[in-house]
This record gives sequence, structure tokens and C-alpha cells, in this order.
Amino acid sequence: MASSQAKDKPRIVIVGGVAGGASAAARCRRLCESASITILERGPYISFANCGLPYYVGNVIKTKEDLLVASIGLFRNRLNVDVRLHQEVTKIDRENKTVVVTDLETKRSYQEKYDYLVLAPGAEPIRPKLEGINLEGVYSIRDIPDASHIKEWISKNDAKSVVVVGGGFIGLEMAENLSLLNLKVHVVEALPQLMPAMDPEMLPPLYRKMTEHGVDIIFHDGLKGIKKEESNTGKSNLRVITASGKSVVADMVILGIGVRPDTHLAKECGLQIGSLGGIAVDEHMKTSDDSIYAVGDAVEVEDFLFPGEKTLLALAGPANRQARIAVESILGRKDHTFRGVQGTFVCGAFGVAVAATGASEKKLQKRGWKQGREYETAVIHAGSHAGYYPNSKTVHLKLIFELKNGKILGAQAVGEEGIDKRIDCIAMAIQAGMTVMDLEEAELCYAPQFGSAKDPVNLAGMVASNILRGDVQQAHWLEHEEWLNDAVTNKEGEEKHILIDVRNPEEVEAEPVPHAQNIPLRDIRSQLEKVPKEKEIAVFCRSGQRSYLASRILSQLGYRVKNVSGGFLSYRDAKASSEISR
Amino acid sequence: MASSQAKDKPRIVIVGGVAGGASAAARCRRLCESASITILERGPYISFANCGLPYYVGNVIKTKEDLLVASIGLFRNRLNVDVRLHQEVTKIDRENKTVVVTDLETKRSYQEKYDYLVLAPGAEPIRPKLEGINLEGVYSIRDIPDASHIKEWISKNDAKSVVVVGGGFIGLEMAENLSLLNLKVHVVEALPQLMPAMDPEMLPPLYRKMTEHGVDIIFHDGLKGIKKEESNTGKSNLRVITASGKSVVADMVILGIGVRPDTHLAKECGLQIGSLGGIAVDEHMKTSDDSIYAVGDAVEVEDFLFPGEKTLLALAGPANRQARIAVESILGRKDHTFRGVQGTFVCGAFGVAVAATGASEKKLQKRGWKQGREYETAVIHAGSHAGYYPNSKTVHLKLIFELKNGKILGAQAVGEEGIDKRIDCIAMAIQAGMTVMDLEEAELCYAPQFGSAKDPVNLAGMVASNILRGDVQQAHWLEHEEWLNDAVTNKEGEEKHILIDVRNPEEVEAEPVPHAQNIPLRDIRSQLEKVPKEKEIAVFCRSGQRSYLASRILSQLGYRVKNVSGGFLSYRDAKASSEISR
Repeated sequence: MASSQAKDKPRIVIVGGVAGGASAAARCRRLCESASITILERGPYISFANCGLPYYVGNVIKTKEDLLVASIGLFRNRLNVDVRLHQEVTKIDRENKTVVVTDLETKRSYQEKYDYLVLAPGAEPIRPKLEGINLEGVYSIRDIPDASHIKEWISKNDAKSVVVVGGGFIGLEMAENLSLLNLKVHVVEALPQLMPAMDPEMLPPLYRKMTEHGVDIIFHDGLKGIKKEESNTGKSNLRVITASGKSVVADMVILGIGVRPDTHLAKECGLQIGSLGGIAVDEHMKTSDDSIYAVGDAVEVEDFLFPGEKTLLALAGPANRQARIAVESILGRKDHTFRGVQGTFVCGAFGVAVAATGASEKKLQKRGWKQGREYETAVIHAGSHAGYYPNSKTVHLKLIFELKNGKILGAQAVGEEGIDKRIDCIAMAIQAGMTVMDLEEAELCYAPQFGSAKDPVNLAGMVASNILRGDVQQAHWLEHEEWLNDAVTNKEGEEKHILIDVRNPEEVEAEPVPHAQNIPLRDIRSQLEKVPKEKEIAVFCRSGQRSYLASRILSQLGYRVKNVSGGFLSYRDAKASSEISR
Repeated sequence: MASSQAKDKPRIVIVGGVAGGASAAARCRRLCESASITILERGPYISFANCGLPYYVGNVIKTKEDLLVASIGLFRNRLNVDVRLHQEVTKIDRENKTVVVTDLETKRSYQEKYDYLVLAPGAEPIRPKLEGINLEGVYSIRDIPDASHIKEWISKNDAKSVVVVGGGFIGLEMAENLSLLNLKVHVVEALPQLMPAMDPEMLPPLYRKMTEHGVDIIFHDGLKGIKKEESNTGKSNLRVITASGKSVVADMVILGIGVRPDTHLAKECGLQIGSLGGIAVDEHMKTSDDSIYAVGDAVEVEDFLFPGEKTLLALAGPANRQARIAVESILGRKDHTFRGVQGTFVCGAFGVAVAATGASEKKLQKRGWKQGREYETAVIHAGSHAGYYPNSKTVHLKLIFELKNGKILGAQAVGEEGIDKRIDCIAMAIQAGMTVMDLEEAELCYAPQFGSAKDPVNLAGMVASNILRGDVQQAHWLEHEEWLNDAVTNKEGEEKHILIDVRNPEEVEAEPVPHAQNIPLRDIRSQLEKVPKEKEIAVFCRSGQRSYLASRILSQLGYRVKNVSGGFLSYRDAKASSEISR
């Protein structure tokens, strides 16, 4: 009888009321008018836009109220959901299907019965146990009160400078927003790159913009500790000390080191935890307990590209979709399952968008995949819209694909316009299991303000298809440390490759690549005597298009020739990125 | 031996040097260094951006030179292509594989041999044989000289007003650009809508913007003739007279009535012409003659959604891709075939983008498909990015899908931001044969400036999936003429449906729908006595989301209830569109 009651009028308790929790409640009510639905939220708000917090700090979003996606009133009146704020679940009693709740305002505890429990506790910012990590003025940012505290600190202390530790999503967005408030921003990042989901050589366009905005970045140097100091004006400062011994003084510190799944409740009640430290769930988002589901940043999910492998992805989109699927399963709808995540993201800062979907090269290499054997990349630098229409911006786009069949594995893009659009298109293609030949043939919107007759997505597909069809051999700047060091000779002083720059002389003069021999494309047919037939030749131009034609001319004439992927623009960025990691 | 020579050093003659012709030459050279490649172009330019012509007229694109995508020098020097301007092909001698060419400057004719001929003559503007159609001041626009003549006319005559006949791509873009030059713009359109590839009820957001910009539109009234008149200032004007007898006086007339395939050469030499009047080609772009290929606006191609059916599509993207395929086939690469067209397009004007991909409802209905039987639509009005981040704009999006399996058939969108992105995503999905359930699960870029955790593409997929799963029944404003006439009673005075508006009273007061009964969503559970159980009920709100919940509540309580698709926003546009066609 309990089970029959559970079926008709299931009592559903949701722990956590942000993206996943709020979505679960809304979807549950839409599907089932008779369910009893309770949200237990530890904080003072539900359904707030945590992705908007940095913009609230930066006054781009003006008020706290703007951050509330849906009000409590809406949940109570429209959705008939019992929303309880300041209620912390401290224990799950799986045998009795009960949670123990502490009212954080009255400090009293009580029990709450459930037929089904949905855990949506989110992820918590990592705060390493380092000297000074709990000093006043050192902040993480997870919720609206955190954001308010940061704003208050800036205003109270008239803060003029900040050290942002960590250059992922939150770090980058906080850096931008604090810069908007005219703080001098220092970023300290332990890795030799920001945005760790990207391949490093894609990022120098972002770094250049950050430098233009006066942001200092210390790469490849972790946080060692923070000390409080009195300045000579009597104001107290924070001195941030890095692993290598560098130190930066600022008025405040933001920790954006990363997040980890908040699993303490799940662990305590013995739910299975996955190998990556997230709550383990099946394709219905069900935990190891048939009555408990978990969604959002706290769970580990399947990697869409590599079925069977798990991954952690703390993003709101997947959390929302997982919540729908969990609730459907609870209500007996088992046909809808979670497909895993591709890791699609975009992050905007300093006028640049950085976006990706699918696997990065770093990730493939960690799996033992080799460029030129299992996978290849097609790199283009193309206009966001038709070049003949004003204000086109360069889309720096890398497409990663499987060599045996052309299957798209991933894509990354950086630039000032149209970045999200291209990654979204390729995200759809990955979801559909499409190949680079499908991108070549994609029929996309074209009018001069919006794109090109050959959209960057088409162009990347064409470059990749040319590689697959064997029409061009590629070389890569990063395979050739000697090229980035501006030396084309090896240790014995012998030239390994003849590096030929087919740009026009005026381009070469403005932006030279030392040691490359210049034969402009227009002269290549008439100056063949300059090209040695016995050597391996590598040709490049500005973006890779003219040198592709040069490589076609030369290869058809019997030369051993490779086109250097991405041309001078990739040289510049590979060199910058390589210098950071040295 | 001739054939062996043709294989090693094929002599390829290309008629027409714009999108398709120029692409064919470039691709041909990249694949084959030994080919002899000749472009015969009748005009004074090759490879110019005809999609940019209206913007050159409007001074958005400043110079003629900006319109040249690739220079003649580039074709000659880099690509080793024999480019000949002002050369008109007047005859094709298929038996002798020869074209007869007239040099338009010297007026002399000569013959040119080919192994393979690629026809890329484009499409010609339709100029109906009406009174006054050849008067001075009446212009079509196909090439750079046309654009220059229009600019000269405006400047010489100090033109202050224009009648644009036809509201398709060219008409709309010319209307915008002439408006930018401060001309008073009148649009005369024979159909009861602009942009005929769209369904009419999607377009009122465009019309409102045009009205804001001072553009007058005469709908549903064709051009009858044009008369020259002397004004009292001695300046001569053009009086445009419509089929219904209306007349508009202006300083100039732009004809944007449409284009038709330029097939005169193909017809004269007996190549097969398709049923739609375009040159017939196979999947390699080969005509009925094995040595002649045709690409671009002059050919008819397969409809991707309805294999076997032909269509005409005068757009640069498909032309470029067709050119690549034609050349590959000529050079013996037969693995790459043209997949047909989806009809993806975007057109921007007056700050609004109008875009679509796949089939429209109009097109499906012409095939005899019925809404609710073969297909359904999901209509949403959602933010271009997160509502909590400033300056989000409404994306008006209609998704059309097959009822038996959820397959996506088409999509249309209108709005000020993010329109091309959503249509591109859905274009990829159509190319992949995906379903609306795949859109529901699509993992797209989300950061507050760029999208939402539930992107409009996801939302449309969710609405459609809810319909497919039977969770909601839909009604449509356009099915119910009585609702648009603000009368919910039928001729006998009996109420056919109870129309319930679940918006808040202040919304209803600001934007009322007469005869609808207001029960705010928050009160629906407590005011059930107002809802008659024996009648069919139709609920709506502002965009369809709240009324979806209302319909779920009522249907679970045993009411016969339909959700009116798109809510008040669709009501407003359906009503406006319906009034135009009356």
C-alpha cells in the first residue's frame, strides 16, 4: 500500500534548489499534479543564476533580484512546491527513507519522509589548506551572499587591486568583472595556460586582450600562501606568494581554483561514489539506492564521446536536463535517458569568447592517441562574417577528428564574434556522430552580416576532408620546437626541413618568421629552382590557405611537401603558448 | 588520344565568374596543376560579392573594390587561370565541344575548345513586360554596374523616395539600404507577406521594425505599371500603379520581384531543362551532356528533405559547394556528390534577422500534409541569452516536425539577436536526420551573454517532445478565425471553446485578448469552479509556458484542454498576419 501511495502521490524531497533542484521540482509538477514536492535549500535563495554571480559583482547585472530566475512565490503558487529556505539536510536515513533537516535560523532539527529523494547539492569551491587562505579579503564565490560580501569588501576597503587565483571559468569571469570595476587585476595560474579545457595554443588571442586591459598573468606558478601586511598608509594588504617565490600585493584575493562535487551527504549514507569523486548514477540519474537520484555538479556522468568513461562537468545546462530525466524516471517514464556530456562550453571575457565542444587534443593525448596516427586537426583563421562587409572578426577554430573515418571528436574556437555559433553547430554534429565531410557540406545561414558563403564551419570541414582524402600532408608548429625557436637547423646544423613562407614580401617584413625562405605564392611556379627536390619542404602563409595551394602545386610536381597548419597566425600563437610553458 | 590528353591536361572552360564559376576555377586548380582553365565572364568583374550589392548601394560597403572577393590578378597569378572579362558566350557547339564567344568590347567573335564545360551563368532578375518597366529610374540589381547606376541616379536626381517592388531578399535588403540613405521607402508586394520562404505569421516582428523605420508596405497587391510624371517643381517622378488601382509616386523604382535561372545557352544547345525551369543536373552536377556541368542559381537541385523532388535555390553557399563537386567529378573523383538543398537562409534588415531552414508549413501544406496529422509545430518566444543578463532579445522560433517519428522538417526564426545561430544548429540537425528529442538533449554553449541553460533550441525541442509524448494537446490561433476576430462564439452564438487566459491581470489589462476569460495561473487550482468540465478548453498565456502548466493541471484533473501554441505573442502576430491577407 505504501508503494501504491508512492505511485499515485509520490512524496518527493529535493535537496538543493538551484539549477538541478529547481528544474526537478518544476518538471515534476508539470508531469504530476498529485505529487508532494519539497525543496530543502540551505541558502537564502532558490533558483538563482549562479552563472551570473561574477556579472553581479561587476555591476553588469544590477541587483540581486535580477539573479533570481524564478521566485519562491512562483514555486509556491504556480507549482505548488513546498520551498523551504535555510534548511540544511544533515543526514539521510536510507532504511527509513527519511532526511534529517536543520533549520539554520532556529537551529532546530526535524525529520522529513520521502518516497524519492533527489540530491542536487552542487559543487563546492576548492579551498586548499594553505597559509592565509581564511584571511579576511580572501573569497570564493558560490552563491549570492558570497557575491555580496565581495562587493561590500571592495566598497568598504576601496579596493584597487586583486589577485585572482586560477584562470578557469570563474577566475576569468571574475578577472573581467573586477577589471570593469577598475581594479588592477593579477591572475595567478598553476598551469601553463588559462581555461584548462582548451588546448594551450588556442589561447594567446585571449591573453593579448587581457594584456590590453591591463591584466597581469603569472602562469605556471601555483599559490603557496597569503600574508596580511600593513601598508604605509595604515591600510592592510594581502601579499600572495607563489610556489616559485614570486609575490604580488593586492587589496583582495579571489579563489577560482576549481570546484569539486559536494558529496558529503551521499558519502555519509553509503551511496556509491564514482572513481572521479562524484556521486555515481545510472542513465536515469539513479544512485546506488533505488529511491535516491542525483543530478548536476555533484554527479559523475558518461563521456558522450567515449562511452563507458566517466567525467565531471559542473555546468547548468546538463544539470537541467539531468533533472528532467531523474524526475521522469521517478514518475515511471523510463524511455528518456541521459546521453552523457560532450563538455560544450563558452566563456566570454575582455571582449573575447572562448568555446569548445567534445575532446581536446590534451584529452586525446592522455588516452594515448597520437596526432597523425589516430587523429588530426584542421585549424583555420577565418572571418566571422563576409570579409567584404565591415567589422568582420577572426574566428580561430580548431577541429579535431578521427583519421580512420573522419568522425568529429572536438572543436575549439576563440575570437570576438560568432564563436558560440560555430561551436554550437559542431556540438550538434558531434551529437549526431557526423564526420568532417558532413561539415564540408553543411548548409548554414549566409548573408554578409552573419557569415560567409563558405562558413568557418564549412572551411574547417573542407580542410579536414582534404587531409582525409590525402590531398595535403600537414605539419604542425608545435611538433617542431626548432621552428618556434626560430632555428630550422637541428643540433648537427643540418636543415631538417626547408621552411618556405609563401606570403607576400610586405607581409613577411611586417611579421617575419626567422629562417623561413620567402617565395610568394604568385612566384612559386616561376621560381621552382629555389625549391630543393631532395629535401622535405614545409610551406606556410598567413592562415594556411595560400600555402595549401602551394603544397598542391609542389606535391603534384613531385616534391615532398607539407602544409604547416594554421600558417603565421598559428605560429604566433604556438610560439606565445610555448614560451609560457617553458 | 584526345581522351588521354583530356585526362592529363583537361581543357576546362567556365562560363560565368561569380560564386559558382570562381569556386570551380579555384578548386580545379588546387586539384589539378596541369589543367587548362579559362573563365569567360560577360561582365567587367569576376568573383564579386553579389550578396553585398545592396550594402554597396547603402554605403555600408564603401567601395566597389571591397566587393571583389578575389582579384583578377589573384586568379591569373596565383591560380594560373585564364580570366577573360567582357566575353559573352553566345553559343555552345556540343558536337565539336566548342563555345562561340563574343568580345563585348571589340564585338569580335571567336571559338574556344573545351574538354569540359562548366556553366555558371546565374539567375536573371525577373522584369515583367508591364507599362513603364523600362523607364529611366526603374532598376533591377544583379551586378556591380547595376548598383553603380542606382547610386548615380540617387545622387544625380537627389532622389528622396523609392518604390521597391517585391519583398524577398533583394527587396528587403534594398529597402533597408535605401532607408539608410534617408529615402522614403514604399514596398509593393503581390503576396500577403514579405519573404515568401517564411510562413506568414512569423513576419510581423519584421513589419513592426519596418514601420518604426518609416517604411510603408502595400501587401497583396501586384505591380500593374509605372508612369512618368512631371512634378510641379519640374522634376520628373515615377507613378507606380498597383493591380488594385493604388498608386505611389516616387523618385525611383527598384524591381526585386525575383530571379529565374539563366538558361538561354543551355536551352539553345539542347541540354535538358528541368520541370522548374532550371538546368537539369545529376548528383555530380553533370547536365544531360557528359562533357557539360552546371552549377549555381541556373540549375535545379534535389530537395534534401524530399528526395527525388527538385527545387530552385539562388544562394551563394550551395553554388560554391556544387562547383567543388562538379570539378571533382570532371577530374575523376566520383565519391563526392551533392546532397541537395535544405533552403537554409538568413536575411537581415532594419535590425531584425529573418532565417529558416528546411520546409515551411506552406510547403508541407502544398504537398497535402496536415497539421496535427502528418506534422506539428512547436512555437516559442524565448530570450536570445539569459534573461538575468542585460539586453536579451526575443527569439521567435517555430520548429516543424513529423508526427510519426519526431523528425525535424524545418525551422524559422525572427528576432534581433541570435537568430542565425539557432537556425544553423537546427540546419545541422536536419542534415543529420535528427529528431526533436535530439534537440531537447542538445548540449550547446551557455554563458549568460550567449545563451541560456535551456537554449531556445532545447526549449523548442522540449515543447515538441512534450507534444509527441502526448503530454499536451495543442491549438493554434490560425486554426480559429473566430479567436483572431475576437469572437469565441460560432455563427449560432454557441461557444465552441472556452478560451482561458492564464496571464496575470496586469498583463491582460495591458494587452487584452477580447472574449478570453482570465484565470491567472496562480489561482487556477483554487478557481476550478470557473472551468466547465463539459466544454473543450483552450488555455494561453504570454508565450505558452505558463499555459502549458495550466493545461497539465487541468488535463490531469480530467478536463479536455488544449494549450494555444505561442500564447499572446503568437496571437498578436497571427492576428496581424491574418489581417494582411484578408
